[in-house]
Amino acid sequence: MSFNPEYDSIGNAFVTHYYSMFDQGDPMIRAQGLSTLYDTENSYMTFEGVQMKGRDAILQKFQSLTFKSIARAITKTDCQPLYDGSVMISVLGQLKTDEDPIQSYNQLFIIRPNGAGSYFIANEMFRLVLHNN
Amino acid sequence: MSFNPEYDSIGNAFVTHYYSMFDQGDPMIRAQGLSTLYDTENSYMTFEGVQMKGRDAILQKFQSLTFKSIARAITKTDCQPLYDGSVMISVLGQLKTDEDPIQSYNQLFIIRPNGAGSYFIANEMFRLVLHNN
Repeated sequence: MSFNPEYDSIGNAFVTHYYSMFDQGDPMIRAQGLSTLYDTENSYMTFEGVQMKGRDAILQKFQSLTFKSIARAITKTDCQPLYDGSVMISVLGQLKTDEDPIQSYNQLFIIRPNGAGSYFIANEMFRLVLHNN
Repeated sequence: MSFNPEYDSIGNAFVTHYYSMFDQGDPMIRAQGLSTLYDTENSYMTFEGVQMKGRDAILQKFQSLTFKSIARAITKTDCQPLYDGSVMISVLGQLKTDEDPIQSYNQLFIIRPNGAGSYFIANEMFRLVLHNN
């Protein structure tokens, strides 16, 4: 058992870093910036109910998103420690891509120590808050 | 590494069970039904940004919720496996307590094998989807 007492600052710093990489209008730059955050095999991402596994599949998905600009406002970030030193993070926020309407979303991460003093994204989920589709 | 291939059915069965215990108008019955799901020490729950740790603190919170009736509609349930056999679950739904308006919510769980063929809730988060409070 090794709950990391710094889970809250680690989680919040991760979120800031992740979105600074993600919120790029150029899909190549976006994928490049995010590439170091995923494991080649042991990263899971579920995007609007579609599950991908491994860095290449996840980055391919992010590269396929076609927005030119994105604006984001984070409403709440909740963090918790896991027994193995990982950190669980839940973000509730709003985003606006190009000229589309503002949308509410929820995004989750489990970041896990990679043995080299850093973290990788072991698990991630993204959902727009929509109840009628 | 032991990702559980049954993560999706395990996660969905858990959600059904959890809400059948939670959605009780009598706070004592609610707390009794949920009590076996938490570890005395190593369960974390963040409810609207307030973190509790351990079974007693979590059940005390649930017992303090004063609704007499609750109706719930689950919109989406996403599940992923973790490397240690745990399952991560995200629920997007709507709920209505008593005569209050319908509210959108997100609830997360990590359920972890307890070594006795069952699971306990290691991590849990609950948030209403509200952006202006």
